[in-house]
Formats: sequence, C-alpha cells, structure tokens
Amino acid sequence: MNRREFHRVFAAGVLGNFRFSAQNSQKYQINAGRLRANLEELGRIGRDAAGGITRLAWTKPDIEARRFVGEKLMPAAGLSVRVDPVGNVYGRREGAGGSLPAILFGSHIDSVPNGGMFDGDLGTLAAIEVMHSLQDANLRTRHPLECVAWTNEEGARYGHALFGSRAAVGEVDSQELELKDENGIILRDAVRGAGGDVSRIAESRRKSGEIAAYLELHIEQGGVLEKNGFPIGVVEGIVAIRHYQVAIRGIANHAGTTPMAERRDALIAAARIVLAVQEETVRLPGRQVGTVGKLTVSPNAINVVPGSVELYIELRDLALQKIDEIFQRIQARAREIEAQTGTRIEIVPTSMDQPAVTAQWIRETIASEAAKLGLKTLSLPSGAGHDAQIMAKIAPMGMIFVPSVGGISHSPKELTRWEDVASGCEVLYRTILAMDSRIRP
Amino acid sequence: MNRREFHRVFAAGVLGNFRFSAQNSQKYQINAGRLRANLEELGRIGRDAAGGITRLAWTKPDIEARRFVGEKLMPAAGLSVRVDPVGNVYGRREGAGGSLPAILFGSHIDSVPNGGMFDGDLGTLAAIEVMHSLQDANLRTRHPLECVAWTNEEGARYGHALFGSRAAVGEVDSQELELKDENGIILRDAVRGAGGDVSRIAESRRKSGEIAAYLELHIEQGGVLEKNGFPIGVVEGIVAIRHYQVAIRGIANHAGTTPMAERRDALIAAARIVLAVQEETVRLPGRQVGTVGKLTVSPNAINVVPGSVELYIELRDLALQKIDEIFQRIQARAREIEAQTGTRIEIVPTSMDQPAVTAQWIRETIASEAAKLGLKTLSLPSGAGHDAQIMAKIAPMGMIFVPSVGGISHSPKELTRWEDVASGCEVLYRTILAMDSRIRP
Repeated sequence: MNRREFHRVFAAGVLGNFRFSAQNSQKYQINAGRLRANLEELGRIGRDAAGGITRLAWTKPDIEARRFVGEKLMPAAGLSVRVDPVGNVYGRREGAGGSLPAILFGSHIDSVPNGGMFDGDLGTLAAIEVMHSLQDANLRTRHPLECVAWTNEEGARYGHALFGSRAAVGEVDSQELELKDENGIILRDAVRGAGGDVSRIAESRRKSGEIAAYLELHIEQGGVLEKNGFPIGVVEGIVAIRHYQVAIRGIANHAGTTPMAERRDALIAAARIVLAVQEETVRLPGRQVGTVGKLTVSPNAINVVPGSVELYIELRDLALQKIDEIFQRIQARAREIEAQTGTRIEIVPTSMDQPAVTAQWIRETIASEAAKLGLKTLSLPSGAGHDAQIMAKIAPMGMIFVPSVGGISHSPKELTRWEDVASGCEVLYRTILAMDSRIRP
Repeated sequence: MNRREFHRVFAAGVLGNFRFSAQNSQKYQINAGRLRANLEELGRIGRDAAGGITRLAWTKPDIEARRFVGEKLMPAAGLSVRVDPVGNVYGRREGAGGSLPAILFGSHIDSVPNGGMFDGDLGTLAAIEVMHSLQDANLRTRHPLECVAWTNEEGARYGHALFGSRAAVGEVDSQELELKDENGIILRDAVRGAGGDVSRIAESRRKSGEIAAYLELHIEQGGVLEKNGFPIGVVEGIVAIRHYQVAIRGIANHAGTTPMAERRDALIAAARIVLAVQEETVRLPGRQVGTVGKLTVSPNAINVVPGSVELYIELRDLALQKIDEIFQRIQARAREIEAQTGTRIEIVPTSMDQPAVTAQWIRETIASEAAKLGLKTLSLPSGAGHDAQIMAKIAPMGMIFVPSVGGISHSPKELTRWEDVASGCEVLYRTILAMDSRIRP
C-alpha cells in the first residue's frame, strides 16, 4: 500500500459516511478524504451560534481562515504563497515551460452571515487539493499553476461584492475604500487590521498577459443539477444582473373615510407591478429570472391607505436582449397600472452589469474530461455572481458547478454531497491538466 | 347696533375672506366670527415646524390648549368648569328642569402628529360657542347642558385611542396606564405631569342615568359631502373596524439561482392577497372599505426571493354581517393563493370592535333642523372612530358632519370652509335646543 492508497483507506474508514463508488476509488487522482477533512476543518472557523458560518471579510474568523489556507494548506501542497495588499491569497506551482503565463483557479473563503460551508470554501480547497495531488503524483505542468482564495467575494460587510477579484483587474473605486460597516469600521482600516494595506492596492492588479486562463469550481446554489440528476454542471456564463428602482406615488389617506373608488393606493399599484414582473419574466421561454425582493410601504400604518411604495426589480439572464425585452414589457404594464390606479410610477435602472460568457474551449474541455469519468454534464447559466465573471475581463474563463442539495445556499442547510465534492474536484484536476496541454502560446 | 350685530360686522370686516350668505347673516343664532377667531387662536397652539398641529395628549401644547378651553373659553361662555382626573374638561350650564340628566356635546382637542386645525377642535369649540350663544341670548334649556373636550382621542402618543371617553364609561384597562411613549414616559406619569391623577380614574366615570343624550359635531374626514355638495352630514353610525393579521410563509432563496418554477415567493402571494382584499371589498354594493395599509417583507433584500411577508387587512362597515361575508371571501381566496404559490397563509383576527349606531330620533332632529335652515343633508356612515361611539354605550348618540375639502384630514392641508363651520355650529345649536324639547323624562 503506497501513501496514496493508505490515505484512501484511512479516509474511507475514519471519515464514516463517505462512500467511494467502485468507479471513483479506482479512477480518481485527487484525495477526496483529505479534501473533505480540510473542508470540515475550515468549516469550524467562523461557526456561529445558529450553526452556520459567519466569516465576513477581514473579521477575525476570515483572518483565521486565510491563515489556515495560506500558512497550512498551501505550504503543505508545496506551493509558494503570496498574500496581496487587499488579502487575496495566492499559491503558485511553477511550470516546466519557462515564462508561460499561469493558469489560475480558485474561489473565495469569506461568507455571508449565517452561511454554509461549501459556498466558496469548496472551490478554494479543491484548487489546493488539485495542487497537492499534483505534488503527490510528482506531475509538472507546462504552465505555472496558481490557486487563489479571493478576499471579500460576498460583499456582505460593505455591500460591494467581488472585491478581491476586482482589485486584481483594477476595478475597485477609491470611494469604496472609505465605506463603513455597521459598526462604523472603515474598509481601509478593516484591511489594515487584517494585515493588508489599501494604499498599495495597485500591487493587487495582475499584469496583462500573466494569466493564460481562469477556472472556478463552485456549488450551483440552485437546484437544477440535483433535480435533474447531473453531478457536473458546465457553466455557459454568468448572467447579467439588472436592478431597477421603482417609486410609486399615490395619496396617503384615512382608511376609514376614503371610499374605495376615491383611493390612489400605492400598494395596489405595487401588487400589480410585483405580479407583472413574474408574468412578463415567465412569458418568454428560457432560464431568465425576475424578482421583486425588496418592497417598502409608506406610511405603513394599518389604518392609512398607502401613499407611496418603493420596490426593486431584479432581472437576470445571459442575454441582455432578453432582459431588455422583459423590462420593456414591464414598463408597458406599469403605464397601464398607473392609469388603473391613479398613481405615478417611476422606474430607474440602478445597476447595469454585463453578462460574462465562458470560453467555449474551456466548456468543451470540462465536458470532455467529465465524460471520460462517466459523469453526466448539464450546460447551464450561473444565476449568481462569481469572481470568475471579473476574471473574464482579463482571461478566457470557465466554471464547473456541483449540485446543491435542494438548491439551498447562503444557509446552514447548504449541502453538497461528498461524492459530488470529490467528482467536482477530480473534474477540476483533469480540466486543469487538459487546459495545460491545450493552451498554445 | 347691538353687541351681536357689532360682533358680526367686526368679524366680517376683520376676518377677511369669511363671507356670510344673506341667508346666514339673518338666520344664524351662533356667532360665527367668534367661533372662527377661537378656532384660529387654538390653531396656533401646538403649531409645528411643518405647518401642522402637533398636540399629543398631555404634552405641553395639549396642556396649553386645555387651559385655553377650560380657563378662558368656557368661563367666558358662563359655564362652570370641571376637569376630571384624566383631563377631560367639562363646562356645565344648568337647566330649568330641576334634576334632569344632562345633554352632553363636544369633541376633543388633542391631535395626531402634524395634523390639522379642524379635527376635534371644531366640535369642541362649536360646543362652547353654542353655550356662549345661549348665554348671549339669555336662553335657558330644561335639561342641564354640558360641553366636553375629551382627552387623548387620537391615541397617537400611546397607541390607544378614545382614552378620555373610555374613562368616562369605565373602559380603560389598568395595563394601559403603564404604557410608555416613544420617549419612555409612562402614561400614568404623563397624566400627572398634566395635573391629573390616574389613581382617581374611577372619578372620571359618568354615573348611569346622568346623561340624557350625546351629540358630536366633527369634520367628515372623507370627501363624500364636499364631492356631492352637501353642507351637513347626518351620521348613520360609526363603523365597526376589524383587523386581521396575515402571516405568509414561503421559502427565502437566491434570486439568481432559483428557477421561477421552483420558487415559493411570499411576496407573490402577498400581492395576490392585497388585490383580493380590494376585489372582494368592492364586489358587494355599499360603502364598506377594505385596506391593506401595512406590509413588511422579509428578508427584504433586492437579491433574495422573499421568504415571508406580514400584512394587515382592515375592513370597516356599519354591518358586521357584511364584514364577515367579505372576510370569508378573502379567506377562500387565500386558500387558492396558497395552492397557486406553494406558501402557507395564516390569518388571525386581531381586533373585533362593534359598530355604534346613532339614535334614529337624533338623526331625524338633525335633518329637520338643517332643513329649516335650507341646508341639504346626506346620511352617511362614519368610517373613522369618534368619542361618540363610546358614549353610545351609555346614552342615545348622534353626530353631525361638515365637509372636509378634498377629503383630507390628519394633515396640515385639512380644511373645512368657514361657511360650513358656521352652518355646522348653527345646526348643532338648533339640534341641542330641539333635543331639549323632545326628550321626555
């Protein structure tokens, strides 16, 4: 029994309910038991009273988690570690091909409040596991490989997501550095408290041409893969997210003395807008989504006809044309609703990000490597945002999804089955090797 | 020119835009100029920065206003003044008929935050004007007459309305006395600070049989009289108000990764409830009203499918049977909406007050006295609550409405035209005299 086999038997015995399929135990190159043990150890950092993970960027649990990654896991995988000024942690394994650009892969280890132990953590530790397995197998790629733990992906503390990857492409606005969290701590000081220094943020920027491609493994966060029985998702792209602020103005009035026919009830108009968003979103075929998640009534008193309502519409799809078409239909409905309810409805777009399409050759590579392992793949868009969409601005980009049980994420109930974790990591491993061969200078 | 004529000419000259109709100047017994001057003087007490009246119960402006009424206006009208332990101010004019019970009439002088100068003030000062005019005319009624300025009708400070009149019928709960306002001041202490003493609240209770009837003049607060050209409203009764708390539970989920068909969106269900309340309320003929005035979304984030919504339904009508019928239809709709949206909807009644019907003979008396003055009357329910509904528990009760311009109240824009103020006060005067004749021991 060599060291690898020993590891596997040890893991299968000690780690209880992890069951290797006959196929997996023979074919997988990565060490699934080690990955699980590392994920479980990371999952104890920032464990909150409600049983979830609360590991907001640059807080104590986040600092502890980045130390676990940068001072323990990456060195154990034989990587040379670099922490940039905002807190992105890189682990590098040199290639055999001289001065070729690096293949970068990874994810994040910050969380939302009371989140789960797979969102971000899985992609980050799987990337390190790929590196560790390459070391175990004494395999040298042509390209240098870098894995990364991005800082502040969730944006839960300061409201601006994808901070670390945006720093890496030079897209952090200087005003962001002065934002305050709910305790009044300025972002600049939070970074300093975690050992960083935003005055050197320019050093976080990756130079043009130094990254050959970017790959990220992540949990789906939706329930499509699990529901349809696919262990691997090949991400078509990360959808564009459009937000629209809707201000509805009626007339606040006494709910006892104002006859029904005389009312200009802003909540009646809002209710019709909420339903119109749903109806116009599902009218077209496809996977687009439309949501009213936030709605505030004023004066919000039990005995006052609502005078105004503010609500936000969110539309997401890979195709901007479809988002625009749905939005135009919603606007037309709003004009009708204004006339029916005697209210004024103003709609203002508030965010206009672009979709990030994955590179076709990376999609093909993922699908092909999964197929060799007998793993069925489904192509699907990512409805959630990821650091990958930022990296798409400077390099060809791909993403691998693994199933989320019940589609639940950002919750202590977030769960990806251990066999799916192992399969995802193995596909990541093989895709990195295939990309290394496929990329021609 | 006698003193009365002098007053009228003076008022017509000095008070600018008040225009007596030829009819009014000859027939009206009350002194409209004096009433207006008193209303305007009271309207300067508690005037807030936003141009409205903020005169919450037992605050400094309220204390000042009650002094103006109890120490200036009532003595000037020849009344003997009594302030009860909670702050109700009574002014009494003895009758000629020995130990007959009193006819009581009046209203309140506390306000909502940033309210208007007619709500309550008009009925209170018109009652004193009736007394003053009787003194001017040296007229003695058979019954003793009492006018009243009820304390804390609005309930804006402690959330429990109709406090003074409820004290007069023994319906203040001892727990109410310990309520705190938003500054942490306990109601008990607020009353003490205004010179009262809730430990003697039993003395506020009017003895059985000591009130022969109750009459209240008030602004309509709705726009029905003005819109239809009636200067006087004869109130059919004060509607019952029923409140229902609705808890809608769906599943909070990621707005990007949760396909439309998989959602259990609590706000979609809430929007359908809001529209169902409107539709089921107007389905039946009549003047009933149904409102969703308060609605709160959780977690209320732009990118999260709403997991739960709490909202409140309010139904008002004179007939409980109609309220029940509407509520049953809404419940049936809620069962359909649960099935359509995959949510759970719980509806709990939270307040169950009764309608208060006015005495037919008082309605007839008001209509007849108005007709003698050439004033058209409209019978209508009161959609708002009034102290009159409490007094209905111990005496026959009637109410006179005057028009509110645009139906606006609880606002600095609250306005009743001065000719309507005068007409309302004159109808109050004549109705009191007619009731005095009509009530037989």
